[in-house]
Amino acid sequence: MIEDKNQDRTSLAELGEFGLIHHLTEHFNINHSSTVKAVGDDAAVLDASEKQTLITTDLLIEGVHFDLSYMPLKHLGYKAVMVNLSDVYAMNGTAEQITVSIAVSNRFPLEAIEELYAGIQLACQTYNVDLIGGDTTSSTKGMLISITAIGKANKEDIVYRNGAKETDLIVVSGDLGAAYLGLQVLEREKQVFQVDANNQPDLDAYSYLIERQLKPEARKDVSGLLKEMEIKPTSMIDISDGLSSEIMHICSQSKVGCKIYEDKLPLDPQVISASEEFNMDSTMIALSGGEDYELLFTVPIADFDKVKGNPNFSIIGHVTDESQGMNLVTRANQEIELKAQGWNALKEE
Amino acid sequence: MIEDKNQDRTSLAELGEFGLIHHLTEHFNINHSSTVKAVGDDAAVLDASEKQTLITTDLLIEGVHFDLSYMPLKHLGYKAVMVNLSDVYAMNGTAEQITVSIAVSNRFPLEAIEELYAGIQLACQTYNVDLIGGDTTSSTKGMLISITAIGKANKEDIVYRNGAKETDLIVVSGDLGAAYLGLQVLEREKQVFQVDANNQPDLDAYSYLIERQLKPEARKDVSGLLKEMEIKPTSMIDISDGLSSEIMHICSQSKVGCKIYEDKLPLDPQVISASEEFNMDSTMIALSGGEDYELLFTVPIADFDKVKGNPNFSIIGHVTDESQGMNLVTRANQEIELKAQGWNALKEE
Repeated sequence: MIEDKNQDRTSLAELGEFGLIHHLTEHFNINHSSTVKAVGDDAAVLDASEKQTLITTDLLIEGVHFDLSYMPLKHLGYKAVMVNLSDVYAMNGTAEQITVSIAVSNRFPLEAIEELYAGIQLACQTYNVDLIGGDTTSSTKGMLISITAIGKANKEDIVYRNGAKETDLIVVSGDLGAAYLGLQVLEREKQVFQVDANNQPDLDAYSYLIERQLKPEARKDVSGLLKEMEIKPTSMIDISDGLSSEIMHICSQSKVGCKIYEDKLPLDPQVISASEEFNMDSTMIALSGGEDYELLFTVPIADFDKVKGNPNFSIIGHVTDESQGMNLVTRANQEIELKAQGWNALKEE
Repeated sequence: MIEDKNQDRTSLAELGEFGLIHHLTEHFNINHSSTVKAVGDDAAVLDASEKQTLITTDLLIEGVHFDLSYMPLKHLGYKAVMVNLSDVYAMNGTAEQITVSIAVSNRFPLEAIEELYAGIQLACQTYNVDLIGGDTTSSTKGMLISITAIGKANKEDIVYRNGAKETDLIVVSGDLGAAYLGLQVLEREKQVFQVDANNQPDLDAYSYLIERQLKPEARKDVSGLLKEMEIKPTSMIDISDGLSSEIMHICSQSKVGCKIYEDKLPLDPQVISASEEFNMDSTMIALSGGEDYELLFTVPIADFDKVKGNPNFSIIGHVTDESQGMNLVTRANQEIELKAQGWNALKEE
């Protein structure tokens, strides 16, 4: 993807580390009054406030988390930021700053890193986040990105994973499984391309799936939507490893069980049709697909009328006593135990 | 180093990511009241205070920043924390939390990662820092460690790089060049070992050099020493890339020049003798060696009597007008322009 696109290449060695950092970050704006000092000193400086600080970090590695043969670098930069912001939103907080560290092998020219940072910058602008620091170094192989996101929240607004109570409703934003199927489509096209490089794929039927895989959006809006509805979740987590894995985190930390209803899982029509085409079970994909970056949360049953019918949210089940375990109620009304496979496990099948 | 040491190996796949994080972090204590929630949710939660928050991050990559053939994993974990804390101390702040992300290839058994975390934990205990989060993933090659350190400082105590003024004294803590020479000794032993694996090296004459390379200590004490002396530096930076590179950062950000005096550079006797043995210029090593993790700072000339004779500090030069440039005054009283080579550049010679 980056090999054949730009003939005017600048080697990273020409710039040096400090030149590179300056070059990549000089066009980033600082928007938050809490950002006292961003890039350019030993550490960034953030202003204190009466709020609590949220800190989260994620590592993305070429060949493990992304494949540059179908992931454009600008999308990769954007997605790497989303993955981190999603964790801040899952605490019901506001993301305000990020640090970005990258390591790249010498196969990447400056123009490739600029593309990556263009995606990071677009994410910063769209989500109103300040880039405040990072580290840039060489790697012996491939590319890796390590991002730390810093957020704020009023103490009383923060939602942890451990507050779910029996009878609470289990709610999910958006829909599930599309990002995983987008990956399947892209993997298939890569195989086709390797056989016949002149093949022009028609990916219209998969546009939503591919967008969910290549350009996910973190659910910044959910916190505000919940406030408008006067709902404070009792627990919340973002769906990065698949619904099953995440609901099990909530249940184990809250010491409760759950029932999830198969017929309540929100699926986009493209997920249903692509599942059939790939001969995969759409429920399995929704449960284990991962990378949806939707939010999963629990609310008191008294909030049922507030959530019911809201197009942003689906009630997919309820919290039970811990002794009942974590179960999926199938369309045939059978209860089967949930397993945390995560998308990595799924991938190996 | 890790290949021949432990026959009882546990594969990382047996534990899984969440099992691994739990296993590695369960024995870490939380000491700061500002740490509200550490490992175990989407994000860590820190309590606000009237202070400002310092954030810094560094990435260490096998084959680029460390060589496991002579760097024991416990030392690596310790050093990876030091590298980050040093940046917080260079802002005149107190480090309170770290996040640790690691990626490891499947050549590392659990016991190797435990060693790494033992070093991280020792650093956390010694420096009173809470581990609050991170990410653990597989890599396609080797090991990498990404650490973010979070610190606090009163707004009025923070020292940036850009406050140096003409006539200020330039001061450095400890001594310079030992870590770089320690690396040279270890590299030489590695070569010898490759030729004759039965060779038993006698490294007594290099003990200080090797310790500075394998187990550096960040200068947590300097902030307190300066307060006792009633000195607030006008600028400060930590020496990770070599004195030349760091003084040039201060000068360019402060828009000043400098004179550094060759005969004032603090050198340990082992640095002098090993420099001769390696046929290298000890001044060059002090200027470009790197990895010393000492602090370099400037103080008003009025503080001369306070600093003079203090065994922790050496006055190595003074700040000049920007137009005079950045110069080294040699023992022969010649002025030569400082060059920022950094230890990477030195290594390639």
